[in-house]
Amino acid sequence: MEPWSRVLAGRLDELELESETLRGNALGDPHVRPLWVYLPPGYDDESERRYPSLYVIQGLTGQLDMWRNRSAFRPNPLELTDELFAGDAPPAVVVWVDAWTSLGGSQFVDSPATGNYHTYLCDEVVPFVDARFRTRAAPENRGIAGKSSGGYGAMVTPMLRPDLFGGLATHAGDALFEVCYQPEFAVVARELRDHYGGSYDRFWEDFRSRPAGSKESDFHLVNAYAMAACYSAGELPFDVATGRLKPDVFERWLAWDPVRMVPRYADALRSLRAIWIDAGTRDQFSLDLGAEAFRREREEIGVTDVHFELFDATHMSIEYRYPLALAYLTERLTPR
Amino acid sequence: MEPWSRVLAGRLDELELESETLRGNALGDPHVRPLWVYLPPGYDDESERRYPSLYVIQGLTGQLDMWRNRSAFRPNPLELTDELFAGDAPPAVVVWVDAWTSLGGSQFVDSPATGNYHTYLCDEVVPFVDARFRTRAAPENRGIAGKSSGGYGAMVTPMLRPDLFGGLATHAGDALFEVCYQPEFAVVARELRDHYGGSYDRFWEDFRSRPAGSKESDFHLVNAYAMAACYSAGELPFDVATGRLKPDVFERWLAWDPVRMVPRYADALRSLRAIWIDAGTRDQFSLDLGAEAFRREREEIGVTDVHFELFDATHMSIEYRYPLALAYLTERLTPR
Amino acid sequence: MEPWSRVLAGRLDELELESETLRGNALGDPHVRPLWVYLPPGYDDESERRYPSLYVIQGLTGQLDMWRNRSAFRPNPLELTDELFAGDAPPAVVVWVDAWTSLGGSQFVDSPATGNYHTYLCDEVVPFVDARFRTRAAPENRGIAGKSSGGYGAMVTPMLRPDLFGGLATHAGDALFEVCYQPEFAVVARELRDHYGGSYDRFWEDFRSRPAGSKESDFHLVNAYAMAACYSAGELPFDVATGRLKPDVFERWLAWDPVRMVPRYADALRSLRAIWIDAGTRDQFSLDLGAEAFRREREEIGVTDVHFELFDATHMSIEYRYPLALAYLTERLTPR
Amino acid sequence: MEPWSRVLAGRLDELELESETLRGNALGDPHVRPLWVYLPPGYDDESERRYPSLYVIQGLTGQLDMWRNRSAFRPNPLELTDELFAGDAPPAVVVWVDAWTSLGGSQFVDSPATGNYHTYLCDEVVPFVDARFRTRAAPENRGIAGKSSGGYGAMVTPMLRPDLFGGLATHAGDALFEVCYQPEFAVVARELRDHYGGSYDRFWEDFRSRPAGSKESDFHLVNAYAMAACYSAGELPFDVATGRLKPDVFERWLAWDPVRMVPRYADALRSLRAIWIDAGTRDQFSLDLGAEAFRREREEIGVTDVHFELFDATHMSIEYRYPLALAYLTERLTPR
Repeated sequence: MEPWSRVLAGRLDELELESETLRGNALGDPHVRPLWVYLPPGYDDESERRYPSLYVIQGLTGQLDMWRNRSAFRPNPLELTDELFAGDAPPAVVVWVDAWTSLGGSQFVDSPATGNYHTYLCDEVVPFVDARFRTRAAPENRGIAGKSSGGYGAMVTPMLRPDLFGGLATHAGDALFEVCYQPEFAVVARELRDHYGGSYDRFWEDFRSRPAGSKESDFHLVNAYAMAACYSAGELPFDVATGRLKPDVFERWLAWDPVRMVPRYADALRSLRAIWIDAGTRDQFSLDLGAEAFRREREEIGVTDVHFELFDATHMSIEYRYPLALAYLTERLTPR
Repeated sequence: MEPWSRVLAGRLDELELESETLRGNALGDPHVRPLWVYLPPGYDDESERRYPSLYVIQGLTGQLDMWRNRSAFRPNPLELTDELFAGDAPPAVVVWVDAWTSLGGSQFVDSPATGNYHTYLCDEVVPFVDARFRTRAAPENRGIAGKSSGGYGAMVTPMLRPDLFGGLATHAGDALFEVCYQPEFAVVARELRDHYGGSYDRFWEDFRSRPAGSKESDFHLVNAYAMAACYSAGELPFDVATGRLKPDVFERWLAWDPVRMVPRYADALRSLRAIWIDAGTRDQFSLDLGAEAFRREREEIGVTDVHFELFDATHMSIEYRYPLALAYLTERLTPR
Repeated sequence: MEPWSRVLAGRLDELELESETLRGNALGDPHVRPLWVYLPPGYDDESERRYPSLYVIQGLTGQLDMWRNRSAFRPNPLELTDELFAGDAPPAVVVWVDAWTSLGGSQFVDSPATGNYHTYLCDEVVPFVDARFRTRAAPENRGIAGKSSGGYGAMVTPMLRPDLFGGLATHAGDALFEVCYQPEFAVVARELRDHYGGSYDRFWEDFRSRPAGSKESDFHLVNAYAMAACYSAGELPFDVATGRLKPDVFERWLAWDPVRMVPRYADALRSLRAIWIDAGTRDQFSLDLGAEAFRREREEIGVTDVHFELFDATHMSIEYRYPLALAYLTERLTPR
Repeated sequence: MEPWSRVLAGRLDELELESETLRGNALGDPHVRPLWVYLPPGYDDESERRYPSLYVIQGLTGQLDMWRNRSAFRPNPLELTDELFAGDAPPAVVVWVDAWTSLGGSQFVDSPATGNYHTYLCDEVVPFVDARFRTRAAPENRGIAGKSSGGYGAMVTPMLRPDLFGGLATHAGDALFEVCYQPEFAVVARELRDHYGGSYDRFWEDFRSRPAGSKESDFHLVNAYAMAACYSAGELPFDVATGRLKPDVFERWLAWDPVRMVPRYADALRSLRAIWIDAGTRDQFSLDLGAEAFRREREEIGVTDVHFELFDATHMSIEYRYPLALAYLTERLTPR
């Protein structure tokens, strides 16, 4: 009952998927994974109809049930999505993918230090969904969207697999790594010095002994560590005593920077039917600058048909941006 | 499946209650209300056993389904509660009460500007629960707990109704109003001046036209307005142009300050079996000072058997305090 | 040589004055006081000409030689003043008054806990200046100006002594005490609790043992204490353990609030020839609201010929406002 | 008279020096420069005695007369220095050098975009002082000290000219450039985007039209620009639209990073008789990390006789550190 909850016009299927590629991952995280599939109103009535599919992925520390988190006076993202498809938008199947790890996330890439989450998404989740739901199983009808690290995944996955994804939407996605990540290295060095005797191990020990996030620096420390696990097999790109950059390790990170990837994946990007990029102008990680840099790189390769928008907000509480982008993607990924 | 969700050892009943006293309330808010009742493990197996009951109430802007909100790497409050009762704690029935209003909340008091939420809680919810569940329906077996505005409600409700409640737990509850509320009046005056032409109406119009909380000042503006609705029938205790105090209106607020209420309700407080007070030393609203002042007032009337604790935290993300207090209350409200 | 220093077009006389009223003051502060008098260009050439006089007073912790403090790329206030009178402004004598105390300042009032600084200013400094310099010794040709606590002094001194001062300029002057001072009481209570065992004595001991201001909370603690010395003979208007207001002591403060003084000194205010009020809209002490409240009170008594201005700034680094107000005062205090 | 001013026990000579190397500098800044020389108590009485000399240089935006700036309840640096030499410290001549530019400073290096301030200091100021005052004109009796950019100059000048300087003291000196400078590039990009149409020219136009520093971002914008003038002949090491690093230009900066310079100037550093390094652990530019990195690099080349200290402070209001280091330098640069 409203306002405490809303009955969905569509339907949410909560599934589980047993992953082969995640089995035995380095972190010992589960290889059986939750997967939610939202079916738009009318799905059950038109038994032959096929739909575009939109994969929605999460930011760092995201867990699937957080899509139900309610903020004051607001609908949650599931309700926002349902509201969209209960309205005038053309229908789509929305797939809520999990790629959580015990370090917070996977960046949706394959890494020996976390697991093969890119492979999991592309070669296990997508076929699983296409086999069980009436999707249009062509890249021109499949999109991917996310915020923060989810925005990162939405940028790089279609570059790597244009055979699967024909559209992307990134909200404040990680990009321009020297701007969004590097300033944190000094913060990490200081925190380790001041509170953990310079040792990441001691941080993790302390972190796991108390409610997560109960110290302000927690997220900085988790974030840098998790990114190293994803981008450089766990090797940190800085000296923990000083924050001094280790250029060779940071180069491995930069190879995964969406901005730097654009020239290498120019053909893939040119093949996309829908690109949505946005970010808040007060984003704490300056991801608005990353968005701008990503756009400029794409313009360099001739991709200019893009929805680009900077809006007045920080990195937080911007889940109301999701349905805007989902509507855009659906529009462009639905056959005329 | 963990870590995305946990199966409860106990059971959660999600109910609805049609309130007579809330019908036709001034804000036009629903009079049919959700109510959750948590039954501890074993409840269904011992069909004669009766249990103490703990009423848990929410802070401003709280909606019942927010108890399921998950933070990074953390269990949510329902899971924390279940974990408690799946462990060594003596069993209790936990009642999750809703007192939401379209202004954010009710402070669990009766007010012509919001509705009779105190009456609702005491004369409708409590009998409803006692009629349907095997509670011990005596004040010495009934407690109430909450955080922030919920902590406020947990302080004042047993003062007003010692015939119903024999224990209370307040986490960072609103208290010492000149310290916790008054500094915001200047913030409100400035925000109205700078962004809303000095008009609260314009604020509300704007606020309702966009995602709630998308401006940093939103909560300050909502909070002051909501408190006026609860404590002074909607009259603001300050001049919106300058923040200047209106002492006569603020006196009406102070009459509801738990610190000031202590001498008037000394007998009620002396009758309680369990009092838990805590707050974070970095609480943004200085509710640690309110906690200290509440304790000192109670010492003045001879109530010293209290669990009092200040801990290193802000006002936010302290839901891990709930099970500590629930354990304390249960212990003291369970007959030997 | 510029930009490291500027040769003044006028002349600055650095004098000393032996005060009778400050002799033996409660704090043991010096009763021999510095006094600077700025004489405009041409003063020495026109030996009969008489000039309006402007008294400039300082904010809390101000010492006379701070008028020479240089900020990056900026002229200092002496240079700004000289620049003004080297330009088109009608000439005036500017008197830089000292009212420092070892608590930071005096608020330019008489107090048993600090000294008779109001008397010193009005009955010693003014006659001293008039005797030694060719001023026009009538209230319609004498003004007073200052910032922060200096703005406070500039508001109250002419109310108390309209026989001496006919114009005032306040930049972010202390006013609306529940807004500008009261929120600090909680800050003080917490700092004393967390760092000084709840004791102001321990604070002062620590404060005097190290470079002043080397802890962030220093100014809050000094400020509240100094104001109590000025307004309530040293009695604090709050409980240091909780920040709880002591209404009777705070009433003594409010008697000194310029906003509250307006009705009592209505005739004095009506007699003024020049009133300048400004403040920054982001003032850390919300003195923009105090400015607004002061204006509104004066409008109530029919005083509307006022220069009122809120500008985009904080409380800091606004010394560039001085010459604007000095020009305004000079214009209005110079006979036609 | 105290506390408003103090009479020095020593003597301060305020001189001017006409520089050949600064004549016609790119910024059109004056080539006649102020120079202050502090002579310790007794200097005039012992007409044959020779003294070690200590050169004190300033941070960005420093102007010579700022040494007289007074903070609340504090002596200024001149007074602190005098206090030191009026006490037990062995006597020294202290030279207060100016290297201001209209961009804020020179980093004490030669640059076509600012001027030859390194040459000015080493080949003009030092001989000028040695010719006029009874200094011991050997490197083992000459030291250099400063804070922030002055600390930077104090690190690099002896590396470049060990034939002149035998001791150095750096308080929060610029070092580890990716940590202390690079995070600002994103701030600059955003500010230019949000307020200056992406144009540094527009910023400078605006900046020069109003009181310097009246916008919070001013210093960031000035700082990045000034550093580019000093380290890379005015070329910015980042894209102003995005903050994206230009690695080739930033390499030119890194060539001037004291941390990176250590291996190249190992012999020079090994020849020093006194090295003092300190910084506040809460330094806004993380210069504590730079200090640590500088120390570690020096340990790598075998220089371990160093005073190293991190203290609890930010970057601001740490002028009380000067006399500690001056005492240390004097002790080690005075012949036994």
